[in-house]
Amino acid sequence: MISEVIKLYADREDMTLTTYILHNSTEFQTNMKKPAVLICPGGAYLSCSDREAEPIALAFASMGYQTFVLRYSTYGGEAFAMMGTGKELPEKPEVNYPTQMREIGMAMAKIKEHAEEWHVDANRVAICGFSAGAHNCAMYSVYWDKPVIVDYIGKGKELLRPAACILGYTLSDYVFMKASGLTGMDKDFFDVSNYAFLGTKDPSDALLKEVSPALLVDDQTPPTYLWATAGDNLVPVQHSLRYAHALADQGIPFEMHIFEEGDHGLALAAQATATSQKECRPDAAKWVGLCDAWLKKRFSFELPEKSPYEAMIAEGVSF
Amino acid sequence: MISEVIKLYADREDMTLTTYILHNSTEFQTNMKKPAVLICPGGAYLSCSDREAEPIALAFASMGYQTFVLRYSTYGGEAFAMMGTGKELPEKPEVNYPTQMREIGMAMAKIKEHAEEWHVDANRVAICGFSAGAHNCAMYSVYWDKPVIVDYIGKGKELLRPAACILGYTLSDYVFMKASGLTGMDKDFFDVSNYAFLGTKDPSDALLKEVSPALLVDDQTPPTYLWATAGDNLVPVQHSLRYAHALADQGIPFEMHIFEEGDHGLALAAQATATSQKECRPDAAKWVGLCDAWLKKRFSFELPEKSPYEAMIAEGVSF
Repeated sequence: MISEVIKLYADREDMTLTTYILHNSTEFQTNMKKPAVLICPGGAYLSCSDREAEPIALAFASMGYQTFVLRYSTYGGEAFAMMGTGKELPEKPEVNYPTQMREIGMAMAKIKEHAEEWHVDANRVAICGFSAGAHNCAMYSVYWDKPVIVDYIGKGKELLRPAACILGYTLSDYVFMKASGLTGMDKDFFDVSNYAFLGTKDPSDALLKEVSPALLVDDQTPPTYLWATAGDNLVPVQHSLRYAHALADQGIPFEMHIFEEGDHGLALAAQATATSQKECRPDAAKWVGLCDAWLKKRFSFELPEKSPYEAMIAEGVSF
Repeated sequence: MISEVIKLYADREDMTLTTYILHNSTEFQTNMKKPAVLICPGGAYLSCSDREAEPIALAFASMGYQTFVLRYSTYGGEAFAMMGTGKELPEKPEVNYPTQMREIGMAMAKIKEHAEEWHVDANRVAICGFSAGAHNCAMYSVYWDKPVIVDYIGKGKELLRPAACILGYTLSDYVFMKASGLTGMDKDFFDVSNYAFLGTKDPSDALLKEVSPALLVDDQTPPTYLWATAGDNLVPVQHSLRYAHALADQGIPFEMHIFEEGDHGLALAAQATATSQKECRPDAAKWVGLCDAWLKKRFSFELPEKSPYEAMIAEGVSF
């Protein structure tokens, strides 16, 4: 496995693409161009969570896919410390919307441009995110072919097309979020996160709609797999339901699994990503196997009917 | 992930330990010493198969374990070309039994000696093999505490103790193999493999017994997980059954899953390791999840009841 960290801006250390390129064996699947999964960790647009980075990459790598972790621009963890203090957060327009979804585009282009070297099937690159990272992927799903991204990258549409999208406990609808009314710490949390993402404490209704992928699905949105827990204690499961509803309305193929129990941020829902016993949830952990099965609808390897050994026998070769 | 290839003999390139060390995040499970799995690929003692190397390591890595692939001494693939030709294979005593099981000991000692650096729980290192690699692991399971290994390594027993053993479509009983009588190409294949492993075309009954772990299980044999397919077309499933029988006789904890269908050498039984469509077998592929659940009986992480975030709230910290 070749795992290396690639800087996506020459002058910045924090915005990176980490590769997990499988051993190109001379014994099987030699030089096969494999489907790939580009992973966006969550972290409320304040950071990129390690729990939703490498462990997720390894889960998809074990399915035989080339995997990549994108650490996109975020405000920085110092914002957490200012939650509820009433203090003004310094402006950082360079990390506000639409920076993060453009960075998925940068990563997607990088992966497809390196398809030969990295043994990637450029027509089969999925995006996969969690929480704010899922929101970023959902945003990319509805904006990847629009000028805000295409013109910014400037390399044409096909280099940017995602083949599929995987969303874990996503946010999808800021209009709904505002209407549903947050209180207490949840409100403080989202106030900070939304300021970090949108650069304003008082976003207009037009801006809220603009960052609500559930309201923007169209016929260019990729097939999508969603999973979440109905018991999510931070991001209401309605965000997943509303995005699924929009996919259904537009006739976009999708699959969704909502597990009854489990807090926000389960990642693999197994000990590999757990910080407490409660985050080991064999029920929710089934999202990985279900996603494996779903991905194969589009990401199956082209394999011969007979193995090389069987083919030799069939040809009458004897030892 | 830190993946690097370490030479176990200074003067040889072929006998190596490849590490798959997980990212030691500052955000979760920081510096946690994790259980580890040491993997021995199969290959009839003629080679070490890539299909049973990195893909297996990634499957266990995705469970949160530190993983290692051992490429132990083998005769070399040129022996395949001489199958059935009647030609004499050159002697290579340096790769004959008991070399390979001693090399598991070398790797085990190396891993435990690097436990701090590699964040490994030295008391929880499992071995895992497939086919001839499973035979090698079964051999190690019954010989790890005996002079043939302990005196050779010369570093004491505890550095060598395996915490558990995982065997995929293992060989375990050469006495049974001889008695059951092979014919045709299977005979040619095993004649070559056995010569490569034992250094003789006509092994004595005493030697056959000596390399039959099913006949040697004792109270120091580690808990074991076995899986195989009843339809194995090369190594009869009886080898797994006989080893399980011996474990049961000695009261060693074990778990076994025999799937009805599938040829020899399925590895993950999924597209990640497949050379043909027939090697993608959703039924047999369940061995991975079943093994994950079994390993947790001994390899569960010690996790707090509450996450750091919940603990902060419980302590009355507000934002």
